[in-house]
Amino acid sequence: MTLPPTSSRPRAVVLLSGGLDSATTLAIARDAGYDCYCLSLDYGQRHRVELDAAARVAKALDASEQRVMHLALAEFGGSALTDTAIDVPVDGVGAGIPVTYVPARNTIMLSLALAWAEVLGSRDIFVGVNAVDYSGYPDCRPEYIAAFEAMANLATRAAVEGARLTIHAPLIDLSKADIIRRGSALGVDYGLTVSCYQADEKGHACGVCDSCRLRREGFAAAGVADPTPYAIGEK
Amino acid sequence: MTLPPTSSRPRAVVLLSGGLDSATTLAIARDAGYDCYCLSLDYGQRHRVELDAAARVAKALDASEQRVMHLALAEFGGSALTDTAIDVPVDGVGAGIPVTYVPARNTIMLSLALAWAEVLGSRDIFVGVNAVDYSGYPDCRPEYIAAFEAMANLATRAAVEGARLTIHAPLIDLSKADIIRRGSALGVDYGLTVSCYQADEKGHACGVCDSCRLRREGFAAAGVADPTPYAIGEK
Repeated sequence: MTLPPTSSRPRAVVLLSGGLDSATTLAIARDAGYDCYCLSLDYGQRHRVELDAAARVAKALDASEQRVMHLALAEFGGSALTDTAIDVPVDGVGAGIPVTYVPARNTIMLSLALAWAEVLGSRDIFVGVNAVDYSGYPDCRPEYIAAFEAMANLATRAAVEGARLTIHAPLIDLSKADIIRRGSALGVDYGLTVSCYQADEKGHACGVCDSCRLRREGFAAAGVADPTPYAIGEK
Repeated sequence: MTLPPTSSRPRAVVLLSGGLDSATTLAIARDAGYDCYCLSLDYGQRHRVELDAAARVAKALDASEQRVMHLALAEFGGSALTDTAIDVPVDGVGAGIPVTYVPARNTIMLSLALAWAEVLGSRDIFVGVNAVDYSGYPDCRPEYIAAFEAMANLATRAAVEGARLTIHAPLIDLSKADIIRRGSALGVDYGLTVSCYQADEKGHACGVCDSCRLRREGFAAAGVADPTPYAIGEK
């Protein structure tokens, strides 16, 4: 059973965390002519304030719908983003896989997007993964995205019936500065987004975690004014 | 971060619905020498009594742990198993994909198993999919399982570090009678399991839905007494 269309535009499911990358991805999907159905995941992340940002961003970028799914990934543990016993790193991205990696998170989020896409009759999923700044995350690599797409094209009723599903990862080989330039050109208000791994309940960024550092450096390199509200550190 | 081992036996994550197939799969994994970590999903299925069965089966088969994850897949709709507006079929499995197909359910459950396996340091996931009786389910086919395994081996920290993950689907080419014979030989008490798509709150099977029909025919063909408590119809 597929929900009937409400407009003549194709539908896309967009994974929307509320951060800079996923906001840009939503703007790109919208600019490409899709009606956008935004999926956010409350998985027990310590920076849950990003979910408020996701709602703001979806509204500002005219999403057809935004849905928050709840899933207690924190029960599994194993990540600084869900386990407060593990500190969020502030000393730069090293050579290995960061402790902020959440086991199988992108696989789980893409799987949920796949389910929703099937019910919506959508053949397009957008995800803001990036292999440049976060080269240590296994599930942000192009070969991973290609393998997920191959699996998805065997997994669903739509696939069996001949519909081809595409996983779009438009940011995958862009630098943070490139992402910010692209989003700015598309009218993204980055002041609505939250990237910080330990943002406070008002959405103020710590300014020192790896995610804040990459974001600050990105705005500087792009030559775009940084609208991020920082709780500490110089702006 | 991986949880330290508590025994010298390897760990496996076993997807356990509480039905006949997954109980047999758990028995097979245990017999193969694994400490079994059972994952069940409360996804809004109308036959939620199967979750009680999953707990009984995990205990009876000495699982190291059984965990129930909650995920509101019913919000997506699109299946007779989560949408009470769609009748459960009672007229036999036809040529197409049954309305009891839940969009991307196996992909989502395997993704959750992948996350738990990574935290447990497990390289083995067991799933009771079967391509014979349910040939209409796209995500029960061998080529789908192979594609998921290929994706999983690019998705995780463990994969990057060289650990090979295997998706075991030991029932995939067995008939229902073969499954029942195998499980009976391994000591599975099928009276603990619930297969019915619309079992009542006491776990009584309707006796007429497709799942009941396949189960009844399986016991008859295996020459094994059927311990299923049926609410209606001859036993």
